[in-house]
Amino acid sequence: MRLSEVETPAVVVDADALDRNIATMAAALPGARLRPHVKAHKCTSLARRQAVAGHAGFTCATIRECEGMAAAGLGQDLLLANEVLDVRRLGRLIAAGARVTVAVDSAETVDAAADGGVREVVIDVNVGLPRCGCPPEAAAGVADLARRRGLQVRGVMGYEGHVVGLEDAAERADQCRTAMELLLAAHSDVGGELISAGGTGTYAINTWATEIQAGSYVLMDTAYGRLGLPFEQAAFVLATVISAAPGWAVGNAGLKAFGMDHGNPSLADGTVLFCSDEHVTVVPSRPVGDQLWLAPAHIDPTMAYHERIYLVAGDTVVDVWPIDLRGW
Amino acid sequence: MRLSEVETPAVVVDADALDRNIATMAAALPGARLRPHVKAHKCTSLARRQAVAGHAGFTCATIRECEGMAAAGLGQDLLLANEVLDVRRLGRLIAAGARVTVAVDSAETVDAAADGGVREVVIDVNVGLPRCGCPPEAAAGVADLARRRGLQVRGVMGYEGHVVGLEDAAERADQCRTAMELLLAAHSDVGGELISAGGTGTYAINTWATEIQAGSYVLMDTAYGRLGLPFEQAAFVLATVISAAPGWAVGNAGLKAFGMDHGNPSLADGTVLFCSDEHVTVVPSRPVGDQLWLAPAHIDPTMAYHERIYLVAGDTVVDVWPIDLRGW
Repeated sequence: MRLSEVETPAVVVDADALDRNIATMAAALPGARLRPHVKAHKCTSLARRQAVAGHAGFTCATIRECEGMAAAGLGQDLLLANEVLDVRRLGRLIAAGARVTVAVDSAETVDAAADGGVREVVIDVNVGLPRCGCPPEAAAGVADLARRRGLQVRGVMGYEGHVVGLEDAAERADQCRTAMELLLAAHSDVGGELISAGGTGTYAINTWATEIQAGSYVLMDTAYGRLGLPFEQAAFVLATVISAAPGWAVGNAGLKAFGMDHGNPSLADGTVLFCSDEHVTVVPSRPVGDQLWLAPAHIDPTMAYHERIYLVAGDTVVDVWPIDLRGW
Repeated sequence: MRLSEVETPAVVVDADALDRNIATMAAALPGARLRPHVKAHKCTSLARRQAVAGHAGFTCATIRECEGMAAAGLGQDLLLANEVLDVRRLGRLIAAGARVTVAVDSAETVDAAADGGVREVVIDVNVGLPRCGCPPEAAAGVADLARRRGLQVRGVMGYEGHVVGLEDAAERADQCRTAMELLLAAHSDVGGELISAGGTGTYAINTWATEIQAGSYVLMDTAYGRLGLPFEQAAFVLATVISAAPGWAVGNAGLKAFGMDHGNPSLADGTVLFCSDEHVTVVPSRPVGDQLWLAPAHIDPTMAYHERIYLVAGDTVVDVWPIDLRGW
């Protein structure tokens, strides 16, 4: 199949860039030092490439992601890095043989896990982002609750999400250290083999965590592209110009093809003026029928809109991968 | 099924508010005066309610929407209000018996339609939004091209998308008139029974179009909620509080559950601080296990993330509708 035959809009991934991103990360964080986060791509075929590169454990954000990874034979060591109260499906998944370690940060989430058939947990610690995680000084108490309920406590996690996107590298390193000092303090109270943290923006500077939960590195987006990381933009949304005026052209990919929280997608040889539901208006103009390669501003919510990845080498589609971990 | 049993995040639609929105619109624009746009809800079960209210023709934005509407028995008169170059699937759909009228605005889109088995078109006219549509003075030429290729020209369409969201009602009415004068000029050159235009923001003031393409009115969002229209917020994303700190609480719905181009979702009894991929951080805090009813800022790209609508009356789920028109 040629690229020109692909129905647009479509997610296209440059096979060579993908391989280089995987190899670069595997060299920096070999084996279990990386626990790739599947939320960034939601694709078990892509996760399998990461497993082949040596990473056997994966991070998930949703139960659906856990179910899909297990169904694909990649459920040896999944970390659901999120609190869950409704553990009905999770309990069935674990009973069926998947190993899923679940984040807990409260008595309620400990009880839900224990009641629902979860066996292993990590204590989620707030390291500065106003989101999930108990205060560091409360981690020991949550761990005690978990152990009293018969749960195995594998360690701690704490996501420095307020740090990973900082464009100033020195500030990023400094704030990463501050956040990880909080996590290490909690870990010294909790124990366990896991100190799980980090993301694409801190993969190289977070030397305190035992494992890094990076996901975006593999496909990249324009937000992470500004940080000077050694990863290439591998994923694009391909659009076709369906209308052209002297002053602008319109491609057939819009608000339903891009996560928009970080702003408009980008074009190497032009500028995006705005997106509508199914349209992107770009300048300068170009002919009807031309293809636009649009780099997403935020890869994770972009992938969640699409059904498949077209893996391409030059003008040839070398594989089509279902984005099979969408939904909840 | 009780609302408390619904797995979150989930789209919940208040059945009574939905019925009132449909009835209010059907009273204002009865029968063929409204051609409901399915892109706002992407749900054939909901479209069937609109058909029962008297609207037999529908507007679609994608080929998938046309296919799904036809498969649901709602393909008597579909307007694909968008230019298409790759008409392979559209030609098959029309050959199978669906009536699909397609927007054209150039020689290329006329040729693609004629070559691909399309039989009926409207001339898409730019009425001020820098997006698709030929200049008004070029409409007659495009119509001539279409007729020479054997296509039936049913009239014109022109979407005043730069007008529908204006918060100042007088300015909205004034700019709507300006836009429609352009469309009427084109129509006088082109002919045909259709002058198709409008949206939820101009449904009551656009008295020039023969039919209005409104979609959002049926579910609504907070952007349209600011315009003083007689439609109620019927759709919410339901989230569960999975983590609580003294200063904030975290619900399990985030960037993959909301179209974010118009900003954060809203909460009747609190404020959304920010969204992450699978989280929403809100103030003030509230207990773990509480449900959050979040009103989307933009309904169309919100619906495109979800698999189903839970139709609710009070605490009871009265129906579950697949959001079956997603994708392309």
